[in-house]
Amino acid sequence: MVLDVCVIGAGRMGELHANSVAAHPGARLVTIADPDVDRAAANAASLGAEATSDVHAAITSDAIDAVIIASPTDFHVQHIELAANAGKTIFSEKPVGLHLDEVERCIETIDRLGVSLQIGFHRRFDPSFRAVKSAIEAGRVGDVLQVILTSRDPEPPPALYITGSGGMFRDMGIHDFDVARWLLGEEPIEVMAYGSNLIDPALGDAGDIDTAMVILRTERGSLCHINLSRTAKYGYDQRIEVLGTEGMAQASNRTPASTEVSTSAGIEASLPHYWFPERYTEAYTLEIAAFIDAASQGVAPGIGGADGLRAQRLANAATESVQTGKPVRVG
Amino acid sequence: MVLDVCVIGAGRMGELHANSVAAHPGARLVTIADPDVDRAAANAASLGAEATSDVHAAITSDAIDAVIIASPTDFHVQHIELAANAGKTIFSEKPVGLHLDEVERCIETIDRLGVSLQIGFHRRFDPSFRAVKSAIEAGRVGDVLQVILTSRDPEPPPALYITGSGGMFRDMGIHDFDVARWLLGEEPIEVMAYGSNLIDPALGDAGDIDTAMVILRTERGSLCHINLSRTAKYGYDQRIEVLGTEGMAQASNRTPASTEVSTSAGIEASLPHYWFPERYTEAYTLEIAAFIDAASQGVAPGIGGADGLRAQRLANAATESVQTGKPVRVG
Amino acid sequence: MVLDVCVIGAGRMGELHANSVAAHPGARLVTIADPDVDRAAANAASLGAEATSDVHAAITSDAIDAVIIASPTDFHVQHIELAANAGKTIFSEKPVGLHLDEVERCIETIDRLGVSLQIGFHRRFDPSFRAVKSAIEAGRVGDVLQVILTSRDPEPPPALYITGSGGMFRDMGIHDFDVARWLLGEEPIEVMAYGSNLIDPALGDAGDIDTAMVILRTERGSLCHINLSRTAKYGYDQRIEVLGTEGMAQASNRTPASTEVSTSAGIEASLPHYWFPERYTEAYTLEIAAFIDAASQGVAPGIGGADGLRAQRLANAATESVQTGKPVRVG
Amino acid sequence: MVLDVCVIGAGRMGELHANSVAAHPGARLVTIADPDVDRAAANAASLGAEATSDVHAAITSDAIDAVIIASPTDFHVQHIELAANAGKTIFSEKPVGLHLDEVERCIETIDRLGVSLQIGFHRRFDPSFRAVKSAIEAGRVGDVLQVILTSRDPEPPPALYITGSGGMFRDMGIHDFDVARWLLGEEPIEVMAYGSNLIDPALGDAGDIDTAMVILRTERGSLCHINLSRTAKYGYDQRIEVLGTEGMAQASNRTPASTEVSTSAGIEASLPHYWFPERYTEAYTLEIAAFIDAASQGVAPGIGGADGLRAQRLANAATESVQTGKPVRVG
Repeated sequence: MVLDVCVIGAGRMGELHANSVAAHPGARLVTIADPDVDRAAANAASLGAEATSDVHAAITSDAIDAVIIASPTDFHVQHIELAANAGKTIFSEKPVGLHLDEVERCIETIDRLGVSLQIGFHRRFDPSFRAVKSAIEAGRVGDVLQVILTSRDPEPPPALYITGSGGMFRDMGIHDFDVARWLLGEEPIEVMAYGSNLIDPALGDAGDIDTAMVILRTERGSLCHINLSRTAKYGYDQRIEVLGTEGMAQASNRTPASTEVSTSAGIEASLPHYWFPERYTEAYTLEIAAFIDAASQGVAPGIGGADGLRAQRLANAATESVQTGKPVRVG
Repeated sequence: MVLDVCVIGAGRMGELHANSVAAHPGARLVTIADPDVDRAAANAASLGAEATSDVHAAITSDAIDAVIIASPTDFHVQHIELAANAGKTIFSEKPVGLHLDEVERCIETIDRLGVSLQIGFHRRFDPSFRAVKSAIEAGRVGDVLQVILTSRDPEPPPALYITGSGGMFRDMGIHDFDVARWLLGEEPIEVMAYGSNLIDPALGDAGDIDTAMVILRTERGSLCHINLSRTAKYGYDQRIEVLGTEGMAQASNRTPASTEVSTSAGIEASLPHYWFPERYTEAYTLEIAAFIDAASQGVAPGIGGADGLRAQRLANAATESVQTGKPVRVG
Repeated sequence: MVLDVCVIGAGRMGELHANSVAAHPGARLVTIADPDVDRAAANAASLGAEATSDVHAAITSDAIDAVIIASPTDFHVQHIELAANAGKTIFSEKPVGLHLDEVERCIETIDRLGVSLQIGFHRRFDPSFRAVKSAIEAGRVGDVLQVILTSRDPEPPPALYITGSGGMFRDMGIHDFDVARWLLGEEPIEVMAYGSNLIDPALGDAGDIDTAMVILRTERGSLCHINLSRTAKYGYDQRIEVLGTEGMAQASNRTPASTEVSTSAGIEASLPHYWFPERYTEAYTLEIAAFIDAASQGVAPGIGGADGLRAQRLANAATESVQTGKPVRVG
Repeated sequence: MVLDVCVIGAGRMGELHANSVAAHPGARLVTIADPDVDRAAANAASLGAEATSDVHAAITSDAIDAVIIASPTDFHVQHIELAANAGKTIFSEKPVGLHLDEVERCIETIDRLGVSLQIGFHRRFDPSFRAVKSAIEAGRVGDVLQVILTSRDPEPPPALYITGSGGMFRDMGIHDFDVARWLLGEEPIEVMAYGSNLIDPALGDAGDIDTAMVILRTERGSLCHINLSRTAKYGYDQRIEVLGTEGMAQASNRTPASTEVSTSAGIEASLPHYWFPERYTEAYTLEIAAFIDAASQGVAPGIGGADGLRAQRLANAATESVQTGKPVRVG
């Protein structure tokens, strides 16, 4: 059986997912829908798909089995609910929404209708991160004691972008909160967060922070530290570390080259990938492959709506903690 | 202008190159030709190309501008000459041929007809290797004194394969001889080689070696060492090192993951890619992109027939050196 | 001028410092004093020094210029004050004392008498850590945004040891609080700490934790994370990382060997040093050399009593934060 | 039993060995002998030893059990024979002598008199190199196929030094020939060497080379490559690699710090140790400890006169190979 897929949104992530669908032998890319139909058409042309500006019709069309939602965040809930009511299998970029109540309502709808929703937490599919998770599952590090996550963007976004982003923890940290839950293997019950505006005053003026540190604590007492930054001059910095009773597992940065030049001045090695499309190329491909495989087999995706909801609650709690200066309990 | 391309051969390399052509915006994959037309059709289907068993017609067809030859080695010279006479721009997998006289004749034909021939020395396009070359060109290592090349296959080929391969230096070492010339920036004038059969007796029975060491010397006295092995249990081992008067540049192995697990037993890191399709993914894509770009602009490729010829002379000299136990001069 | 030195204490640290003094051309080891005179004599024999059980007389003797105090923590304040009143130049192992009031009183005495006191924060002398500090001072990382410190002992101490230790933050974390201040280049004004007992129940029974995470915040908003663990099966884990507006500086673990074994099972590298005497060999030597040099030149040591006091206040604040579950302000 | 030791020579190596003897609990440093008695006295003063200019008397004195010879190479044979006739246990710096016939005669004398002679091949005691050897002995790399040795000095010696040095292979390569034999676990039977003068014309004027590559072959067909250089701007480059049927073992360079600074310009790591006293600190200590232990127990040292002789034959063969341009057989 070949899965017929529609991609909503012809921006960077939409284009990326459309390419992944087209290249997957188990799926057929039927439509790319975007109000900017020229952009949709540009993506669709070389992939043998149709382009449309009618997002509503594209989502509910009988010609498709599954919908991949890469529209702007403001539209996620609306598009998910539309697709859910039409009985489609759904993949949605994170976050489901910026307001927790609408996210909760949306996930309830999904559950009530019994459709599948996979959230775009692509980092769980990164080969290096997966190998860390596998090491935990194989018992090689023993019981998890500490998780340390480093997550730094190479440069800050424009201040304009910040306004609709929900702030650093919801926009950028959401992935790290998901990775934290995944690696801890337990739910955090308390969040303490610090945030400063040290890099770009314009971000502060827009009401956001650009430098942050978080600690998560689980019921059992295992701990997770996340550090976030909107600058990393050496490139996109994405590292994870897990300490357990039997050892440690780490994933370090990935580089486009493995070259070293040694002179009297020092040994100079290749920099990491500069940004997420290069860093997570395989992860983006693998998450769509997992979505197609699960949809084709009619099984639930490994990362469902509840995961999206829980990561969002942690992001909200971190935001509140910075505002109140106190630890925040998470239900 | 879009370049119309025919790919000859539907084996592993042919399939790889066909995919690269199809994905390149400056080219159109018109035909895949292979006597085994089913295999050609399987490759062509998802790429929107035609399949044919008539290799002769495909090469000479007016509908194409350029030919990519990935047929078995025995057919390279015949296919190159056919394409040259039809005025096509040509890319051919290495080696041009197993016998030096036919290679020389073929290169002469190419030169006489004034057509372009790019040889499939993909390693020059590997991002890590290119960064080493760039460091040399930027003067960061000073004058080149020594080049050290490590080239080890993860496992030996079947003995049957050996028979038609031309032996370890022509089959496997040919790439290293090209890289040696490229990094030395001078022509080697003498070759000394040692070869042993230590890994698989069946290779020895087939008249070949499986463990080899070579030294190349240039007129100026700069030196290059190449070590070759038909086994490397830890994966495909492809490293280069250049020592100069001002420093050293190195490219180490590439890995599919960057994970480390530290326990009381040691720190265990991810293994290198196991074999060439994974190791040289970008290089294969980039060499075809360079071919398409040069062909579209009507300029000569960076790696021409003369490069193929010179690498082959070094491979022949190494083969002779093992047989005679003496250094061999190369003209 | 050669500095005449007395070492108080013939335990592990006392022996280490005695060796450093004996090997330094600018100092003479005159006495080793320990109530267990046999142990003192064993250390003194091969170093050409005298041994005595009379600690009081040794500290106040006219024959010595400087005292190195490596007695049990309970005796530090008493020995420091005795030496200060006798006008000696003083080096004391950390912590100055377990109770903040006695530490404050002791530092006041030192200041009033105008004598020099260097605290044994040896990590500031580690060549790798110093290179990080130098990179900051040279402006290579720009303004400091984040500091991340990893500090893990290979194995927990006996529960009995815990009782007199002051707890994980005062006993083990004190060094990290000093390194945090040194790298931040600013005083932390707030401390939030989490602590759990996950490794050895006996430590919990003794009222202590064995797994901890801390965040420090400065007035300006720069942040520091410290993670502490009483277990690290792969060896003593001592790493530092500084993120700034222009880049990052890191010091990774040191290893006794730089060997890698690559097999089909993975690439296995040498483990870090297992414990502090091997890890900080150079640091211990260099801190004593700095002490001798400063004392000989009559200048103040780079790390004075105020540093000891401030690190202790942070350790106390972290201890309080774990108890109250709230952030604690530091004056 | 404590071994009474005399050190001959108060130069850099003599001083190093004298310190190692003085610090070893199983030995007593009795005398340092050097025609330049002031230099001897300077070394002896802080170590509690006597200084003398009478080398002859020092070697034959009844007060000593063992002699460590660190005199200039020209005197090695004379001092060894003197010590041997006096029945002393002997350690001698490499090389035993510059002329093979005198070395052979000297080793015969040693054997005839039944005294012990350890040659100063300290690299066998380097912890990283030993770990490679242990991996081979433990069968982790399987049967040895290839050994690759990199041996580069940071800067060339003065031309004057070259004159009495015996040339690059005898002076500098001798250690590598020993390491080659040790790691191959078999005797090389053929040597091919290339040498050029590319770094310092003054070395060429003095009749020597400064850039060299060697291949050694054993009877069984295992191969070893050695590359030598009199320049390495990034520091003393000392690496070993062994490929076997089951994997690879490598020792990389050692560094004084493990610091990395990441900026937009690249990731800059600490350079290796600049020269041999820092690089091989532990090795020098351990070889003297091994000498003292073997002498105290009356057992033969692990590295005897025959090892010195065989390394020298390989160095001679390499020298001849460069002169004749042909491979040279070694008996």
